[in-house]
Parts: sequence; C-alpha cells; structure tokens
Amino acid sequence: MTQVLAIGTFNDTEAAALTEAFGCRVLAEVDGLGGLDQAVRDAVTAVAFKGHQGFGAAEMAQLPGLKLLANYGVGYDSIDVAAASAQGITVTNTPDVLNDDVADLAIALWLMQGREMQQAADWVRSGNWAGEGAFGLSRKLSGSKVGVVGLGRIGREIAERLAAFKCEVHYHSRSQKQTPGWAYHADPVALASAVDFLFIALVGGPETEGYVSKEVISALGPRGVIVNISRGSTVDETAMLDALEAGELAGAALDVFVNEPQIDPRFLALPNVVIQPHQGSATHDTRAAMARLQRDNIAAHLAGAALLTPVN
Amino acid sequence: MTQVLAIGTFNDTEAAALTEAFGCRVLAEVDGLGGLDQAVRDAVTAVAFKGHQGFGAAEMAQLPGLKLLANYGVGYDSIDVAAASAQGITVTNTPDVLNDDVADLAIALWLMQGREMQQAADWVRSGNWAGEGAFGLSRKLSGSKVGVVGLGRIGREIAERLAAFKCEVHYHSRSQKQTPGWAYHADPVALASAVDFLFIALVGGPETEGYVSKEVISALGPRGVIVNISRGSTVDETAMLDALEAGELAGAALDVFVNEPQIDPRFLALPNVVIQPHQGSATHDTRAAMARLQRDNIAAHLAGAALLTPVN
Repeated sequence: MTQVLAIGTFNDTEAAALTEAFGCRVLAEVDGLGGLDQAVRDAVTAVAFKGHQGFGAAEMAQLPGLKLLANYGVGYDSIDVAAASAQGITVTNTPDVLNDDVADLAIALWLMQGREMQQAADWVRSGNWAGEGAFGLSRKLSGSKVGVVGLGRIGREIAERLAAFKCEVHYHSRSQKQTPGWAYHADPVALASAVDFLFIALVGGPETEGYVSKEVISALGPRGVIVNISRGSTVDETAMLDALEAGELAGAALDVFVNEPQIDPRFLALPNVVIQPHQGSATHDTRAAMARLQRDNIAAHLAGAALLTPVN
Repeated sequence: MTQVLAIGTFNDTEAAALTEAFGCRVLAEVDGLGGLDQAVRDAVTAVAFKGHQGFGAAEMAQLPGLKLLANYGVGYDSIDVAAASAQGITVTNTPDVLNDDVADLAIALWLMQGREMQQAADWVRSGNWAGEGAFGLSRKLSGSKVGVVGLGRIGREIAERLAAFKCEVHYHSRSQKQTPGWAYHADPVALASAVDFLFIALVGGPETEGYVSKEVISALGPRGVIVNISRGSTVDETAMLDALEAGELAGAALDVFVNEPQIDPRFLALPNVVIQPHQGSATHDTRAAMARLQRDNIAAHLAGAALLTPVN
C-alpha cells in the first residue's frame, strides 16, 4: 500500500514522474477521494497536490494518516492551511523557482499593454499598414512611475526589472524593506496616487481579497494601468471593470481572474485590456523545476528528513 | 519667400509646429518638389524631412541653395549622405531621444514571442481556456543567452535591459567596447553560434544590407530567435523566411521589413513570428521629442549657430 497519493491536474510527464518516484496513483479531482477504499486512504501519509480545487478540512478528514500536503505552485490559497495545522499536517509549496517567469510575464504584460502591441499586430495583419499608413502613437514606458503592491520575492524581481527601464519605483507592503532607494508607501491608496502603473504581486487567500480596492483603483486614475500576475481575488474585479468601461482607468494587463478560466465576458469587450490564461510560471523549465521541488519535499518526508519548503 | 521647406509624412501636430516656427509649406511627397516654382525652390536653404522615400542627388539638384537636410528619425538611410556632402549639404538626424522606446519594443518583442503571448491571448478569446483547459507551456526567457548585433546607443540600451533579466549578454560590433563584462565576438557567425536570441540593432543603409546573412541565421539554429528593431534591410529576409518555414529557426519578432509596409505575405502564415508595424519610436513623448530636435536643428541653421546633431 503506497503512502503517497497524487491529486490534481498533473500533465503526463508529471504524473509519470510521480508514479515512478513513489508508485502512487493519480486522481484527477479532489472528489475522487471518496471513491477510494478506506484501507487505501488510511495508508496515505503524503499528498502531491496540483490545481485550484479546494482542499480543506473535509478532504483532510478522509486521509486520517496525512502528514504532508505538498502543493505544486507557490500560491496555496486552495488549501486550508489553518485546518492542516490543526490536524498536524504540514503544507509545502514550490517558491522561488518560478519568480523569474512570473516577473518576466509582468514586464511583458506592461509593455504589450502600453505599446498597444496586440492592436499594432492586428493593424499589420488586417492590411491596414499597407492600405492606410502608420499605426497610431502609443505610450512611452521607460522612465514611468511604477508601483509594486507586495514586495515579496516575485514583487522584488518585477521591481528590479522595472529599474532597468529607468522607472521610478514605488512599493507597498506590510513593512518597509531594504531596497535600492525605492519609495515605500504604508498605504496602498497613497501608492496608487503616486504612480501610473500598478503591479500586483500579493499572495492570494482571504487576507488579500479585494486588497486592490475601489479606492486604490480610483487613486490610480485615468492614466493608470493595473498589471496583475498574482491572483484574481486580490483585485476588486467589478470595480476594475467599471473603471475601465468608464474611462476612469487607462487599461489593465491580467494573467489572473476571479472566476478563471470562466472569466467575466466584460473583459473581452475592452480593447485596452491584455489578457493571458494564467501562464505566469508556464514554461517548460520552470514547471519541471516546480514538479521536482514538489517530489523532493515528498521524498524528504518519506526519508524522515527536514522538508525543503514548508509553509506552516 | 521662406528658407524652410518640409517634405514627408508629418502628422497634423508636427506640420503645424513647423509652419508656426518657420512659416514653411509642407509637401507630402518628395515628388512634389518638381511642382514648385523655381523661385520658391531657389529660396530654400533647409529641408525638414520625414519618411522613407529616397532623397538623393536628383532631389538636391532641385534645391540649389540647400545647406541643411534635417531628418526626422535616427536612421537616415533614405538620404544619400555622400551626395549631400559633395554638395555642401549637412544632414542632421534625431538620435538618442528614441533609444528607450526602441529598446523597450525590442524587449517586448522578445517576451511576446518567447512566452507565446499572442497565441495565449487567442486561447482565452476563443473560449479554449474555459473549454479545453490550460494553455501549453512556453519558453523560459530570464537567464537566456542573448546576442546584440551592433552595440551602438540603442544596442546598449537593449543589452542593459536584458542584463536585468539575468541574461548572459554577448555582442558583435566593429570594435570591442567598454562593457560590464559582456562577451565580444568579432564575427557575427560566432556570436550567433553562442546565443539563442539575436537582437539586431545595426544602422541601415548599403553597408549593413543582408548583414544578418544566411550563415548567421544558420549558426543561430533551430532554437534561435531573431529580434529586429533596426531596418528590414539588415537581415537576409528570404533566408530568414526559408529557415522559419523549414523549422531551422525557432522564431522571429520583427518591427521592420524589407518591403514595408507591403510586407512579404509569407510572414503572415508563420505562427512563431510576432509582427509590429515599425513602431519602435512611435510614442507620443518620443515623437514630440524627435520633432523638437528636428526643429532645433533648423533653428540653429537659421541663426547661424552650430547644428545639434549633424551626421556628416
């Protein structure tokens, strides 16, 4: 009876690696737990988890011997960590290995939105360049005033890249950090008032729900653009859509949405919004590194060694 | 009789500023010169020029008093500078003020191509994200081996941004430059062999025509991507298209084309090519700065002062 169970949206390569390493079976859905024999569930001490389905107290109760819930991804807002702690379950995630990719995508979203690259590409493909002449003018981005909400490891990677674009970097986080002279704002509204481009790099979960509020969006103003690579939940999405439709916000560039992948259709009608399908960490190298770190945490658990990246 | 004549694709704002500053008339086309009275042509000592129509010895002969040919743009490959020099005409351009924008677009092209952002956006808009699941994996870009062909002012701006993405920076130029440890290659083929992403930042004109040759493209290889923000002429476009179609090159991200705006339709069939309509410097701020620098050169000429940015 294997101690490891994999649950979630693993691709074939990842599933094969888990099976080879641990002889575990792979369930596509959390709901599949109920279909397992009691004896199989009782034997499980570690779960490899991937995806955005909720994993809470009810699921944990079905695995009475569970000691490790190893999440694939840096964000673990699908997991009820308090419930896990209460049952003596350690949660691990896969931080750091994806910082570069997510920061790269944030910069790409910023550039693509500001320089109107999708519209410019369409201008060529539609024949308008040849038929009607030059595409219009867009917005200079180097040298902009930019703000980062949440100066964790990903936020810092974003800010360091923006500094190379000669931007004036501002940030907001719970406490002031050691930085190369970036401007700290204790209040997110003050941050939004000071900048034109707001990059959201918060962790997800209940504590940050709607953190980029209607007031923050209003303070960002009609020249403001929101770039979000964190979680859809961190922004008051309705307030953002209202502001975009009313011209009270210049644009948005989003990799994440409240109800992804069934995103609000209002986004699709807005030409000044760049949309990506939550692909922040979705490169071959990085996803392989995330899968490896998840397996390494499970292997450490099985060997009785210290876990690499515990979160509780 | 005014000494200044404007010729080319000036927008309304630019034309108004020229008219206000110098009381000059604006011709849309170089061919319009022939339609002017002899007396009008004889009075002209300075031309404000914009666009990609050729301005050579024949045009200069129609303006016997011409002393200044003030180009709008950093690239002046439309102008026969040797002919100008032979006739005692000074050519000016508008360097530096556009470096940031062009470098920004180069980075944006690199990110958009490598992270497949256009395809990813289409994946959302077509309903595939909601209906079929996650978009596929793309390519990690931070930490890549990158090469810059031509380490002038724009090339250096590109390299400095790439360094913030933790890239291993290589370059080729006529001579080795002072750099923060970037790898110099005396031979463009050697440069292409050493990197996966090749950024072209050469000046245009006959000397660099086809400089990124079939051999360079072949050395870049099947994982290679060309990013060109210079002039279409600097790359052997047919060799590039052949390599892209044969899978001997991974992709291209191009702001410039040999026969723009009538670009080769073979480009439109290639999903791994990001296409932009020569918008490198096309932001409001930068185009205003370019127009101002052009006018400042003309004003200096009229005042008998030193020109700001002569090229011959």
